[in-house]
Amino acid sequence: MQKRLAAEALGTFWLVFGGCGSAVLAAAFPELGIGFYGVALAFGLTVLTMAYAVGGISGGHFNPAVTVGLTFAGKSESAALVPYIVAQLAGAILAAVSLYVIASGKAGVDLGGFAANGYGEHSPGGYSMLSAFLIETLLTAFFLIIILGSIHDRAPKGFAPIAIGLALTLIHLISIPVTNTSVNPARSTSQALFAGGWAIGQLWLFWVAPILGAVIGALIWKSVGEKD
Amino acid sequence: MQKRLAAEALGTFWLVFGGCGSAVLAAAFPELGIGFYGVALAFGLTVLTMAYAVGGISGGHFNPAVTVGLTFAGKSESAALVPYIVAQLAGAILAAVSLYVIASGKAGVDLGGFAANGYGEHSPGGYSMLSAFLIETLLTAFFLIIILGSIHDRAPKGFAPIAIGLALTLIHLISIPVTNTSVNPARSTSQALFAGGWAIGQLWLFWVAPILGAVIGALIWKSVGEKD
Amino acid sequence: MQKRLAAEALGTFWLVFGGCGSAVLAAAFPELGIGFYGVALAFGLTVLTMAYAVGGISGGHFNPAVTVGLTFAGKSESAALVPYIVAQLAGAILAAVSLYVIASGKAGVDLGGFAANGYGEHSPGGYSMLSAFLIETLLTAFFLIIILGSIHDRAPKGFAPIAIGLALTLIHLISIPVTNTSVNPARSTSQALFAGGWAIGQLWLFWVAPILGAVIGALIWKSVGEKD
Amino acid sequence: MQKRLAAEALGTFWLVFGGCGSAVLAAAFPELGIGFYGVALAFGLTVLTMAYAVGGISGGHFNPAVTVGLTFAGKSESAALVPYIVAQLAGAILAAVSLYVIASGKAGVDLGGFAANGYGEHSPGGYSMLSAFLIETLLTAFFLIIILGSIHDRAPKGFAPIAIGLALTLIHLISIPVTNTSVNPARSTSQALFAGGWAIGQLWLFWVAPILGAVIGALIWKSVGEKD
Repeated sequence: MQKRLAAEALGTFWLVFGGCGSAVLAAAFPELGIGFYGVALAFGLTVLTMAYAVGGISGGHFNPAVTVGLTFAGKSESAALVPYIVAQLAGAILAAVSLYVIASGKAGVDLGGFAANGYGEHSPGGYSMLSAFLIETLLTAFFLIIILGSIHDRAPKGFAPIAIGLALTLIHLISIPVTNTSVNPARSTSQALFAGGWAIGQLWLFWVAPILGAVIGALIWKSVGEKD
Repeated sequence: MQKRLAAEALGTFWLVFGGCGSAVLAAAFPELGIGFYGVALAFGLTVLTMAYAVGGISGGHFNPAVTVGLTFAGKSESAALVPYIVAQLAGAILAAVSLYVIASGKAGVDLGGFAANGYGEHSPGGYSMLSAFLIETLLTAFFLIIILGSIHDRAPKGFAPIAIGLALTLIHLISIPVTNTSVNPARSTSQALFAGGWAIGQLWLFWVAPILGAVIGALIWKSVGEKD
Repeated sequence: MQKRLAAEALGTFWLVFGGCGSAVLAAAFPELGIGFYGVALAFGLTVLTMAYAVGGISGGHFNPAVTVGLTFAGKSESAALVPYIVAQLAGAILAAVSLYVIASGKAGVDLGGFAANGYGEHSPGGYSMLSAFLIETLLTAFFLIIILGSIHDRAPKGFAPIAIGLALTLIHLISIPVTNTSVNPARSTSQALFAGGWAIGQLWLFWVAPILGAVIGALIWKSVGEKD
Repeated sequence: MQKRLAAEALGTFWLVFGGCGSAVLAAAFPELGIGFYGVALAFGLTVLTMAYAVGGISGGHFNPAVTVGLTFAGKSESAALVPYIVAQLAGAILAAVSLYVIASGKAGVDLGGFAANGYGEHSPGGYSMLSAFLIETLLTAFFLIIILGSIHDRAPKGFAPIAIGLALTLIHLISIPVTNTSVNPARSTSQALFAGGWAIGQLWLFWVAPILGAVIGALIWKSVGEKD
């Protein structure tokens, strides 16, 4: 179990450092930089790369909502639920600390809201709490359907990290304007700790909606994807 | 059959929600956003991800023109034709409703033409009806050739969702300026219902041209790709 | 042989229509469009998709320089050399005609140099003939090394279309500023016929340099990649 | 051994010519060009393509830090360490010479710092030496974890070049603003020789940090990824 937890911590570190880091560090380069598009690709590639690297050890969740959904679908044992989430949070927070230290090494930098998730006036595009809740739930549900489908015996072998990683890229392409995209409570928590104030106050949504979505996704998969 | 229809509805929901959603939600971010390029990638990734997830259940058509073309080529049974198309339309329309609800949660938003397809004065680049008809027909024909070729016994196993998904990305890279890219009557119908007026009036082209193209593509494949 | 030639014509049609088409049709959208980046991806995806679709039929060359290089390396029989090149030219020119018809359906459009390749004052970045010659030769040499390496028994099975297609994307990312990127005499010829004048006058370079590069690449591969 | 060294030289040539070349040649096209994003993709695709092409010959390191890390992890024999690094440096420097010759063929061009790596006032975003050191170390550590994980028996066969190549793209998406991204002492050395002055003075960091990171990555992998 110890190696599995280390793998989850490493993978979630990479997800937060790579995904949020690409957004935070490139923010000063609006024209030549990477835009929402590059951030979307970065998040997806963190999962694609670490799923190939350590997916065989821990399953490559890197996300409390995914662990909940896979447990609910019977693809991850219940005893691993809490330890996995603790390891994911530890990795995510350590990544945020590392990113903070590195990003601070720029004269006059204002890290503002870091890469925190938000709704209402803290939504990049000014979307309401309801829109934020709905899209986080819906996208996490599909994320779980894609995960459960692509790791199923019926699917071609070896391609799941591509499908899952690029699903996360797609999810960011859709929803950065709405919530800055979470679908991952560990990612949101790690950033809120640094953004403080409003981000802590809105953090509940980025736990409730992704986990609700993950359970809905697991239920949909059970009825559509599993043999009766 | 019920699970297959559910898989088609889910996949077409994802195609419309992800592809059209990325366009509609990012429209307010012209500089940092994702542009035509990001929308092209989003459409392709919806198919890549769901083809890995549920392709083993339903074949992963997510598109009435694809179902017609595969039926014509003898790769999908005739009895599934109408139910598949109904399921695809249901998924697409439900996705448009979901997107409308979420996108409306932004103060002062004007959803305008949603992500509808159009020609003439409703073509993003002002292309004529004839150009629109020709390019939709041609691109759908090649889409079917790529689908039929990459699922053929001769092709490497497991890679078809990559080839097919990225073909849809390529098709969007080419033709967003001309028609906003359809090649999929279910996608076009779902958006026209919300855009109304002109979009309903032009919808015929986005049924006729893709289906015509799909049949042409199937015919070309039969003469080039199948053993005599 | 007839089906193989049809496959080469189809693939080269797709390469020219998709690659050059993405550049020509999106030219009016400098801000929201796809840029050099999207054109680079489009060219690569034409090869990736058609190599999965018809690579098992014809080998998936879609390029006279590739056919010369593979023949030189003993991976394509000599008798196919001329017929393949004729089929590639036919597909490329038909694609240019199709693109011309579609692109002309826009009021007031000036297709200018189409997507022709050029050097000197016709290089996008004003690069000299020597720079153009060197980079076309060098990039085609590496293109052949990647093709020969990724189809070799030693390489993992099924991945060659990904490696080869993305190599073409990479080649465009590097050299669009220099020559608008050829590495493919059929692609250059098809565009020069429409751009006329200067493009015809400079066309020799986009036959000589890619073919020279392909032969050099085949020679390098023979000495590095083959058993003694 | 001679063929393996030739493969390493070829691969490192391609990494430097393609990655640095895409940055240097497109620099005059800020709006239509490829941006940090395109450069990030270019670097990754150099490794993806050549790892498929010659990975079966030499292992496909193309980077002294990778060779050190793999040697440390017991995946590359010690006797190959120095010859590999010499071959990589030779390939990188030859690529820089080629790029210099080609890029100079543009009237009035000022190649300035070429694509050199830097910190402090030579960091693209003005990041400090400490930030530069930390991020180069951290990113190379994860690069090694991904390499060691994706080539491990436990990982799906054949996908390692995708995981490793896209990891390098991700690493560039994160860190171009900080150091212009090295994680590869051969790449840095080749550019510093042309940029001269400050780049030579700062070159030590782009040897020490990547190699330190590679050793740390190998140590982490040994404790997490290997059986006890």
